[in-house]
Amino acid sequence: MSNNVCVFDWRYGSREVRSLFTVENMVRTYIKVEIALLKALGSVGLAPPYCFSEIEECANKIDPMDIYRREAVMGHDIASLAFILGEKCGECGKYVHLGATSYDIVDTTWALILRDAINILRRKLRGIIEKLLELAKEHVHTYVIGRTHGQHALPITFGFKFANYAYELARSYERLVELEKRLIRLKMSGSVGTMASWGDKGFLIEDIVGKELCLEPHPITTQVAPRDGFAEFISVLAILASQLDRLALEIRELSRTEISEVYEAVERVGSSAMPHKRNPVIAERISGLAKIARSFVTAALENIALMHERDLTNSSSERILIPHAVLTLDQMLEDTSKMLSVIKIDKDKARINIDLTKGAVYSEILVTKLVEKGWARHEAYVKIKEISKAVYLREDLVKAILQDPELSKYFSENELLAILSPEYVTKNVEKLIERTLNHVQKIISTEYGKCTS
Amino acid sequence: MSNNVCVFDWRYGSREVRSLFTVENMVRTYIKVEIALLKALGSVGLAPPYCFSEIEECANKIDPMDIYRREAVMGHDIASLAFILGEKCGECGKYVHLGATSYDIVDTTWALILRDAINILRRKLRGIIEKLLELAKEHVHTYVIGRTHGQHALPITFGFKFANYAYELARSYERLVELEKRLIRLKMSGSVGTMASWGDKGFLIEDIVGKELCLEPHPITTQVAPRDGFAEFISVLAILASQLDRLALEIRELSRTEISEVYEAVERVGSSAMPHKRNPVIAERISGLAKIARSFVTAALENIALMHERDLTNSSSERILIPHAVLTLDQMLEDTSKMLSVIKIDKDKARINIDLTKGAVYSEILVTKLVEKGWARHEAYVKIKEISKAVYLREDLVKAILQDPELSKYFSENELLAILSPEYVTKNVEKLIERTLNHVQKIISTEYGKCTS
Amino acid sequence: MSNNVCVFDWRYGSREVRSLFTVENMVRTYIKVEIALLKALGSVGLAPPYCFSEIEECANKIDPMDIYRREAVMGHDIASLAFILGEKCGECGKYVHLGATSYDIVDTTWALILRDAINILRRKLRGIIEKLLELAKEHVHTYVIGRTHGQHALPITFGFKFANYAYELARSYERLVELEKRLIRLKMSGSVGTMASWGDKGFLIEDIVGKELCLEPHPITTQVAPRDGFAEFISVLAILASQLDRLALEIRELSRTEISEVYEAVERVGSSAMPHKRNPVIAERISGLAKIARSFVTAALENIALMHERDLTNSSSERILIPHAVLTLDQMLEDTSKMLSVIKIDKDKARINIDLTKGAVYSEILVTKLVEKGWARHEAYVKIKEISKAVYLREDLVKAILQDPELSKYFSENELLAILSPEYVTKNVEKLIERTLNHVQKIISTEYGKCTS
Amino acid sequence: MSNNVCVFDWRYGSREVRSLFTVENMVRTYIKVEIALLKALGSVGLAPPYCFSEIEECANKIDPMDIYRREAVMGHDIASLAFILGEKCGECGKYVHLGATSYDIVDTTWALILRDAINILRRKLRGIIEKLLELAKEHVHTYVIGRTHGQHALPITFGFKFANYAYELARSYERLVELEKRLIRLKMSGSVGTMASWGDKGFLIEDIVGKELCLEPHPITTQVAPRDGFAEFISVLAILASQLDRLALEIRELSRTEISEVYEAVERVGSSAMPHKRNPVIAERISGLAKIARSFVTAALENIALMHERDLTNSSSERILIPHAVLTLDQMLEDTSKMLSVIKIDKDKARINIDLTKGAVYSEILVTKLVEKGWARHEAYVKIKEISKAVYLREDLVKAILQDPELSKYFSENELLAILSPEYVTKNVEKLIERTLNHVQKIISTEYGKCTS
Repeated sequence: MSNNVCVFDWRYGSREVRSLFTVENMVRTYIKVEIALLKALGSVGLAPPYCFSEIEECANKIDPMDIYRREAVMGHDIASLAFILGEKCGECGKYVHLGATSYDIVDTTWALILRDAINILRRKLRGIIEKLLELAKEHVHTYVIGRTHGQHALPITFGFKFANYAYELARSYERLVELEKRLIRLKMSGSVGTMASWGDKGFLIEDIVGKELCLEPHPITTQVAPRDGFAEFISVLAILASQLDRLALEIRELSRTEISEVYEAVERVGSSAMPHKRNPVIAERISGLAKIARSFVTAALENIALMHERDLTNSSSERILIPHAVLTLDQMLEDTSKMLSVIKIDKDKARINIDLTKGAVYSEILVTKLVEKGWARHEAYVKIKEISKAVYLREDLVKAILQDPELSKYFSENELLAILSPEYVTKNVEKLIERTLNHVQKIISTEYGKCTS
Repeated sequence: MSNNVCVFDWRYGSREVRSLFTVENMVRTYIKVEIALLKALGSVGLAPPYCFSEIEECANKIDPMDIYRREAVMGHDIASLAFILGEKCGECGKYVHLGATSYDIVDTTWALILRDAINILRRKLRGIIEKLLELAKEHVHTYVIGRTHGQHALPITFGFKFANYAYELARSYERLVELEKRLIRLKMSGSVGTMASWGDKGFLIEDIVGKELCLEPHPITTQVAPRDGFAEFISVLAILASQLDRLALEIRELSRTEISEVYEAVERVGSSAMPHKRNPVIAERISGLAKIARSFVTAALENIALMHERDLTNSSSERILIPHAVLTLDQMLEDTSKMLSVIKIDKDKARINIDLTKGAVYSEILVTKLVEKGWARHEAYVKIKEISKAVYLREDLVKAILQDPELSKYFSENELLAILSPEYVTKNVEKLIERTLNHVQKIISTEYGKCTS
Repeated sequence: MSNNVCVFDWRYGSREVRSLFTVENMVRTYIKVEIALLKALGSVGLAPPYCFSEIEECANKIDPMDIYRREAVMGHDIASLAFILGEKCGECGKYVHLGATSYDIVDTTWALILRDAINILRRKLRGIIEKLLELAKEHVHTYVIGRTHGQHALPITFGFKFANYAYELARSYERLVELEKRLIRLKMSGSVGTMASWGDKGFLIEDIVGKELCLEPHPITTQVAPRDGFAEFISVLAILASQLDRLALEIRELSRTEISEVYEAVERVGSSAMPHKRNPVIAERISGLAKIARSFVTAALENIALMHERDLTNSSSERILIPHAVLTLDQMLEDTSKMLSVIKIDKDKARINIDLTKGAVYSEILVTKLVEKGWARHEAYVKIKEISKAVYLREDLVKAILQDPELSKYFSENELLAILSPEYVTKNVEKLIERTLNHVQKIISTEYGKCTS
Repeated sequence: MSNNVCVFDWRYGSREVRSLFTVENMVRTYIKVEIALLKALGSVGLAPPYCFSEIEECANKIDPMDIYRREAVMGHDIASLAFILGEKCGECGKYVHLGATSYDIVDTTWALILRDAINILRRKLRGIIEKLLELAKEHVHTYVIGRTHGQHALPITFGFKFANYAYELARSYERLVELEKRLIRLKMSGSVGTMASWGDKGFLIEDIVGKELCLEPHPITTQVAPRDGFAEFISVLAILASQLDRLALEIRELSRTEISEVYEAVERVGSSAMPHKRNPVIAERISGLAKIARSFVTAALENIALMHERDLTNSSSERILIPHAVLTLDQMLEDTSKMLSVIKIDKDKARINIDLTKGAVYSEILVTKLVEKGWARHEAYVKIKEISKAVYLREDLVKAILQDPELSKYFSENELLAILSPEYVTKNVEKLIERTLNHVQKIISTEYGKCTS
C-alpha cells in the first residue's frame, strides 16, 4: 500500500467499484468472454461442444499476472491470454479465440464491467436523490434566504433548495439510463468487423455469445466498438460530477462563518495549525474531485476519431480514463451521501439571516403590489429601488415605507407585515416540491439492471 | 464585414443558423416571450387582456440596439428592454415583465432558439446519414483494404465503411433527440424560482405561457434553468464533431498521395506555392473545427456549479459558448455534406492497394482454416506469422504456402485462390449493411419538431 | 451591429485590440509581409529593387474583402492575395510571393499582430499590478479576517491580500515576457521549410525580411512555425484568466450580503426583478469569461500534432482561437481594472467580522504560547481545540481562558488582550508586502517592446 | 499487483519516477520538511537545538501508513503526522510542527519532489533531443518526400525532419527550465501566510529552512503557494506531450503499409487475430498517453481560483493530478526514447516514394525558374498547375515539359534533370540543421540541478 502512487488504489473509491477494475477482474472477464465465444463455436460446429466448460475449469488455475509477464515478451495482452490458454488447456486450448480479434474480448469486457459499474453508480445516485427528496419534505417550510450573485434575493425554503438538487440529479440519472443502449453492447465481429473468419456462421456466433452474456450486439462495427459511447459516458459522469460540485459548493458557502446555516457535524481535526476550525472538508473533496472528472472529458472526446478501422491510441488512454473516471464519481457519490447524512441545518441562524437586510429582500413584492394598485411596473421599480437603497442594511423597510409620503398612501402596516414575510413569498413552494417529487420518482423508478455480469 | 474579428460573423456558418443568434433575433425573441407572459397576465387578471397585442405592435417599432444603448447606462439588458417597452408602449407598458425575472426571459429565449437550432442541425445530420446509407448501398461490393494501426488488415468494402459512419452518426442523432426533453423547457418561475410575485396564480401563468410557446415547464428551478442541460447539449455537439472529425480524417488519409483511393474533386488552388497540390481542404477544415467544438465542453461543464439560486458567471460565457458551438457544428455539417457530395472513389486504385502485401492480409483466414483442418489455433498462428513475415511485401503468399513443405499438404492452389480473396472475406458485409440500415432508419425517422419557434 | 452573432464584434473587447484582428488588419499585415519579402527579393536580385515600394502603393488601393471574394472561387486566401497583387500591380506584380509559401505570410503576420497584442495585454496587466501594489500600500494595516475553507482563520490585512494578488499576477507577467522569444519569430522558409525556391539566397532573404520586420527567424521550421508557441501563449492566457478569476471570486465573496466588506460602487440596475440588489456584476463577468479562456487551451494543445511538414487543421481553428482568446483576456483585463477602481472597502464591517467568532480565530497563537510555556504542541492543540469548540460563536475566548482552571494559570488578561489581536498576528505583514513589492517591481520593469508592428 | 486499478502502479512509468510519488516517499519527505523546520526552530530558540536530530532518528521508526490509519480517525494527514511524532518522540516531540500550517509541509514537499521529477524528465528529454540531433546528422542527405495535407510536397531529408523535432522539443526543455523559478520554491509562512505564530522570528525561520532544503521562498503567499505554478507545469507537460504525439504520429504515418519508409523493428505479436501485422505500437501508445496529458490541464487551471487565503479543493485533485501527469510524461519519454532507438528507415522506399508523382512535386521550382526567365509569377503558377494536373501520377513531368510547345522553349532536358531533383531542392538543409544544432545545444546545456532533494 505504501508503494502506491494512485489514490484510487488505496484511499479513494469503494471496494465494490475498485474490485471491478483490478487487473484480476479485467482478466477474469476477458476469460469469461473467451469462454462464451467458445460455447458459441461449439454450438455452430467450429469447436467441440464440451470445450467451453473444460476451458472454464482450466482457466481458473491461471494467474492473471501471467498474462502480463507473457505480454512483456509478446507485446500484446489478449494474444498472451490466448496463447496461455492454448498451451495450458489441452486439446480444447486449440480453439480458444478462434476467429476473434482482441477487441471482441476487450470491448465486450468493458460492456460487462461498465454495466456493473453503471448499476452501482445509479444505485448510489438514486440513494442521494431519495435522501434529497426526504430532506425536501422535511424542510418544506424551513425558511432560508434565496441568494443570487451571492446577494440576498427573496426568501425560499431549504426544502425548495433540496428539491431543486433532486431534480437536477434526476436529470443525470435519466442520462445514465439512456446511454446504456449505446454503450453496453456486444462487440463480436472479428478483425475489421466483418466476421470474416467465421464465414456464414458469424451472425449465429454473435447471437449465441450475446445471449450468453445478456448483451445486444452493435448492428455494425469496425474492428472496435464506436468510441462515442465512451465519450458520452465520461461526459455524463462529468456533468453529474459538476452537479455534485454545485451541491457541495452550496454546503461550503452555507457553512461560511458569517452564514453558518449549515455545517458538517463530524468529529475531526479541522486544521493542523488552527484548533478552532470547522472546515467543510467532505464538501471540499467533492468539489476537488469534480475538477478531475471534468478533465477526463477531453481525452474521451479525442478517442473518438480513430483512424480507419481502428488505431491503438484509445487503448492506453482508456486503461487510465475509464477506471479513474468511474472511481472519481464513485468517491464523489460516497462523499455526497455521507455529507447529506452529517449536515446539520441551523434553522434559527437561517431565519436571522433572512432579516439581515431589514426587509429589502421583499422589494420585488412591493413592485408587484404597486402595479396591482395602478403604478406602471418600471416606475414602481425605480421608486422601490430608491427607497430600498436609502435604507439598505440600516433601517427597516416597513417603517421606511410607512414614513414615505408617496408610498404610505398605498399600504397599511398590517398589509406590509403580511406580504413582506417568508410565508407570503413561499406560498408556491409546497406545490413545486410536490410536482418535482412526482417528476423525479418517475425517473428513478426506471426499471434497469435485468442483466448482471 | 472587413471590421469583423469573428469568422462566424462573415465566413463560417450558414445564413439560416447565423440568423438565429444575431442580436436582432435574440431581442425579438426576448420580446416574444415578454408578450407571451403579458398574454398570461391578461388571462389571470393581472393585466388588461388586450395588452399583449398592443405591446406586440408597439414592440415592432423598437430598434434592438436601443436595448444595448440603454444597457450601457443601466448595466442590464433585460431590465433595459422592460424599461423601454414600459416607457414607449403607453398604458400597457405598465405591465411588461410583471413578476418575472430576467432569466424567465433569457432561458425561455434559449429554449426557443435552440429548439430551432437543433431542428436545423438534426435536418442536416439526417441528410448526411442518408447520404452515407446511399453510399453504403452503392459501394456494398467496392473492395478496399481494411486498415488497423495504419497497417493493412483484411479487405472490406467502401459500403461497409460508410455504413459504419452512418451507424456512428445515428447515435448522435439519437442523443440530439433524447436531450431535447431536458434542454427545451419553459423557465417561467420568477426570482429564485418560487413564482412569489404571482402568488397563487403562478402555476396558471406558467401553464398559459407554456402553451403559447409550445414548451413544457421545468418542474422546478432556481432563478435559472439548470445548466446541465446546456452542458449536455455542448457535449453532444462535441461528440458529433469528433465523429465528423473521424470521417474527415478517413477522407484525408485515403487521399494521401500513396493511397489515392479517394479525393475531393473540386477545382481550386491547392497551395499558394506548389501548383501540383490536391489538398483535402474541406476534410481538413472539418478536423480543424472539431478541435474548437471539443474545447467548448470545458466551459459548459464549469457553468453547472452556479452558486445557490444562481450567480451570473454563466451569462457572459454562454453568450459566447452557445452561438459559437452551434455555428461550429453548423459549418462542420455543411462541410461534411459538401465533402460527401464531391469525393470521388478510385475503385481501381483501391483494388490495387489490397494486393500490395501480396496476400499477407489474408493470414488470419489461413489460421482459421488450419484449425478447421486440425491445428491448434496458437500453433497455426505462429506458423502463419512465420511464413507471412518471410515473404512480406516481397513474395506472393499463395506461392509461398504451396512451396512450404508443411503447409502445402493442407491446401490446394484452387482452395487458396478462393479463400484468399476480397470476395471471400466480405461475405457478411451485405447483411451487416442491411442490419445497419434498418437500425439507423428507425432512429432518424423519429418524429420531432412538432413545435417551431 | 444587430446582425452580429459574436459579442467580440460589438460588445466585449477594447477597440484597440479588436482592431488588430479585423479582416482589414489581417490582410493589411499580410501585404506588409509580402512587401518585406519583395524588398528582400529586390536586394538579392530576384526582383527589381524598386518593386517593393511600387507594390506598397498599389496595395493601398485594394479592398481587403476582394481577397475573400476571390477566395470563394480559388479556395485559398493567400493565393488569392498573390493573384490580385499580381494582376493589378503591373510589372512588379510578377514577383509578388515569389518562392514563398502561404504560411511564410500567415505565421509572420501572427507574429507581428501578436507582438502588438502582447504589448497591449502586458501594459494593461502592469496597470493592474501597479494598482494592486498601491492598494497593498494603502491598506497595509486595514484588518480583515483571513479565510480558509470559507471559515475564519487568522486576521490578515487587505494590504496583504492585495500584495498576494500582485505577486501572483506578476508571475503571469513574467511568463508573458518569457514566451515571446518562442512565439514572436519570423517564419520565412518557403514550402516545407527548406527555402528551396530561393536556392542559396534563402538565408539572405530571411535575414533581410527579419530585419525589416524586426523579427528573429526560427532556426528551422517545417512548412509552418511550430504550434507549441501558440499553445504556450493560450495556456499562459488561461492561467492569467484563472488568476483574475481568483481575484474576482474574492470580490464576489467579500461582497456577500453577510460579509459586506467590499462592494462594486457602481450605479446600475442590479436585477430586473429585485430592485434592492447590489450585484458584483463586473467581478462575475470576469469569472464567466475565465471559463471561456480556459476552454481554448484544449484546442491549442490539439493543434500541435500536425502531420509531417504540416496539415491544415490548425488553420480554421486558429482563426477562431487566437482572436477570441486574446479578446477574452482583453475584456477581462479591462474589467479587472475597472473593478479595482470602483470597489469600496468597508473597514468597519471588516473589523466587526474579525470578532464574529469572539476570539476563536486566535486559537493557534494560544497553542504556540503554551508550547513556549512548556506544553507539548499536540497536547496544547487538543486543549485549545476543546475550549475553542466549547465557546465557539457564543462566548468570548479571553473570558473562557481566564475562567479555565488549567489555562488561567498560564495567562494574564493583559497578555491575552495583547496577543489575541489583529495587530499582534499581522506583525510581519508590512515586511512581507515590502519584499513582494521589490520582487514584483523587478519583474514588471522588464524592458520590452523595442519593436512594434 | 493484480489488485491494482491504476496502470501507473504496475505497468506504466519508470521505477525511478514512481518511487518519488509513493505514499512512502511522500510521507518521508513530509518528515524531512518537519525536521528542517525543527532545526530552524532550534536555531532561533523556539525549540531545543538538538531536537531535530532526535526526531530524525525517531521518525525512521514510523510506518508511513500509520499516518493514514490515524487520518481515518482525525480526518487530516499532516495533523496525524504531527500527533504521531509528538506522541512517539519523547520530549522533542513537543515542538514538532510548531507554528506551521499543513501546507508549509505539503507545498514544500511538492517543491522537493517536483524538483527531482523535473530533473529526471529533463534528463530524459535531453537524451531524446540528443538522439534526434544524431539522427539529423546521420540522415542529413537521406531524401524523403515532404508532405503537407498528407500530399506530396517538395522533397526534404530525414535529417531535416529530425532537426525540426529536435528544435521543437528544445523549446519544451527551455520551458521546463524557466518554470522552475516559479514552481520550485519554499512555502514556510504558517497559517494564512503571515508567519503569525513565529512572531518576529518568522523571516529567520523561513531563511534557515530554505537554506537547509536549498529552496528560495515565495516572497509572499496565502496559506498555500500560488497554484498557477502547478498549472504552468501541467500545461508545459501537456505541450511536451503533444510534441511527442506529433513525433509519434509521424512514425505511425510513415509506417503505413503504402508508405513503409519507417518501421518499429521490434519482435512481437502485432495482432491477436492477424499474424502478418507489424503495428507501430510504441508510437501509438505515445499518442494515446498524450490525450491523457492534455486532459489534466483543465483540472490544473481550475485549481488556481481558490477562495480567499485558500480552500481545500486543490488538495484531492492535486493528489491525482500531479503524480499522474508526471508519470504520463515519464512513460511517454521512455517510449519515445525506445521508439527512436528501434525505428529503421528504409531509404530505398523513401527514394521510390519521392518519384511516385513523376516529378510533379517539383512544380514550384519550375514556377520560380519561369519567373527568373521573365514570366509573371501568377501566370507561371497557372501554367505549371495546368501541366502538372494533366500528367499527375501518369506521365513524367520532365517529358511533358519538353513536349509542351510553350514551355519547351525555356528549358533544356539537362537543366530540368538538374533542378527537378532532391539534391537541388535540399541545398539549404545542411546549413539549416547546423543552425538548429547550435541553437538547441545552447538550450539543453543550461546548467540546472544544483540542488537535489
